[in-house]
Amino acid sequence: MRILLTNDDGIHALGLCALYEALREEHEVHVVAPEAERSAVGHAITLADPLRARPIKRNGRPFGWAVSGTPADCVKLAVHELLPGPPDLVLSGINLGANVGINVLYSGTVSAATEAAILGLRAAAFSLDTYQDPDFCFAARFAADLVHWITVLPGPGAFALNVNIPALPPNRIRGLRLTRQGTARFVERFDRRTDPRGNVYYWQAGETLAETEPEDVDSRALRDGYISITPLQFELTHHAFLSMMQIPDYTW
Amino acid sequence: MRILLTNDDGIHALGLCALYEALREEHEVHVVAPEAERSAVGHAITLADPLRARPIKRNGRPFGWAVSGTPADCVKLAVHELLPGPPDLVLSGINLGANVGINVLYSGTVSAATEAAILGLRAAAFSLDTYQDPDFCFAARFAADLVHWITVLPGPGAFALNVNIPALPPNRIRGLRLTRQGTARFVERFDRRTDPRGNVYYWQAGETLAETEPEDVDSRALRDGYISITPLQFELTHHAFLSMMQIPDYTW
Repeated sequence: MRILLTNDDGIHALGLCALYEALREEHEVHVVAPEAERSAVGHAITLADPLRARPIKRNGRPFGWAVSGTPADCVKLAVHELLPGPPDLVLSGINLGANVGINVLYSGTVSAATEAAILGLRAAAFSLDTYQDPDFCFAARFAADLVHWITVLPGPGAFALNVNIPALPPNRIRGLRLTRQGTARFVERFDRRTDPRGNVYYWQAGETLAETEPEDVDSRALRDGYISITPLQFELTHHAFLSMMQIPDYTW
Repeated sequence: MRILLTNDDGIHALGLCALYEALREEHEVHVVAPEAERSAVGHAITLADPLRARPIKRNGRPFGWAVSGTPADCVKLAVHELLPGPPDLVLSGINLGANVGINVLYSGTVSAATEAAILGLRAAAFSLDTYQDPDFCFAARFAADLVHWITVLPGPGAFALNVNIPALPPNRIRGLRLTRQGTARFVERFDRRTDPRGNVYYWQAGETLAETEPEDVDSRALRDGYISITPLQFELTHHAFLSMMQIPDYTW
């Protein structure tokens, strides 16, 4: 299969390389990824600046394209310009850190998969639930093994799956859960500092609020030691609220 | 009321100034907006760089804060650091150009409102359906008039409304429609060029595909000459697909 591989941690990230190695024997893999880290860029695209794509080698062999834009830009540019034909599948990751709950909205990794679905393709985003000493070995093998399941999955022609993998030794992972997006969110805190010239600046910091969530929610599955798989869509309408709203009485 | 006003076209954009002027007599308005245009940034937030907030004057009077980040950053920083207390309402815009269909995902204007809803606030994003010779006069008055309706609206405590206004003379606007997000999307085209040094670069261009959409869809309402109001949420789970999925049979 022809697979487009991208991420938001940048083309040199370990998680992407691990997934590439797990896929390349069996598939025609095309890497098109941001030239540097583009975490938390959400579904940004680049319209006001031109995009550049630079061929990258690894160990003396062609490896992929480093793009000056966002993960969503990478998917668009790959599909329209860089690949020899449409990919059968788009994979994003493996991200350093989980993408669950509200944080999914900020995730470049997930947005790459969503962008692929918008373009009519099947896609999956993979994230490993750790920021420290990541071992992508099992996650990469699991992702590569999931490729067949994704391509034969009964369902819409195009979709995006958000897959989160616990950072546990394989024998301690308890299984897989199909989940919905939860409400766990990044609770920000601004660290106010003054630079040597006397100007104020802020670091956006904080932590993800650990809430008690039902078993069918993404963050809870991870905490329980399960791999979480959430199918995503891209319609944001609040249907329940819409059905009870009344048209404002306005005259002009 | 204490109103936080932001946008994605930048603090000096005409649409923001028009809305500010329409609100400032009746309300305590705090402007916290990107220092420059941040269109199509989606729900990006800034974590890898510090944020700066610079006080801005207009006509010699304090006007607001210009922030070095994205619209979502502006809302977070405003609520946590810059405002004297939590705002009663967050308004975003008035954007130059409609935000309907799939394009809503790319919109910084809409993401500012969604971010406010995530923070537990009521919010609305306003967009004017034109890129040429914008006349924000009616749209700003309409937005200011809608403030009362938004604050007394029965419904969830926090929400985000996506409001799109036709660029028509008021007497040709046919009314208001409550709508859902449609599938109109930006169909990109990459314009491949070579710079004076011989390096290839791409401009991302394209146009929004005009589809035949039902009357209750955002883009159709605009085309029919109606103001479109869509309530948004931020759960991306594809529930219909989830309910028919089977857990992959995987052993390790």
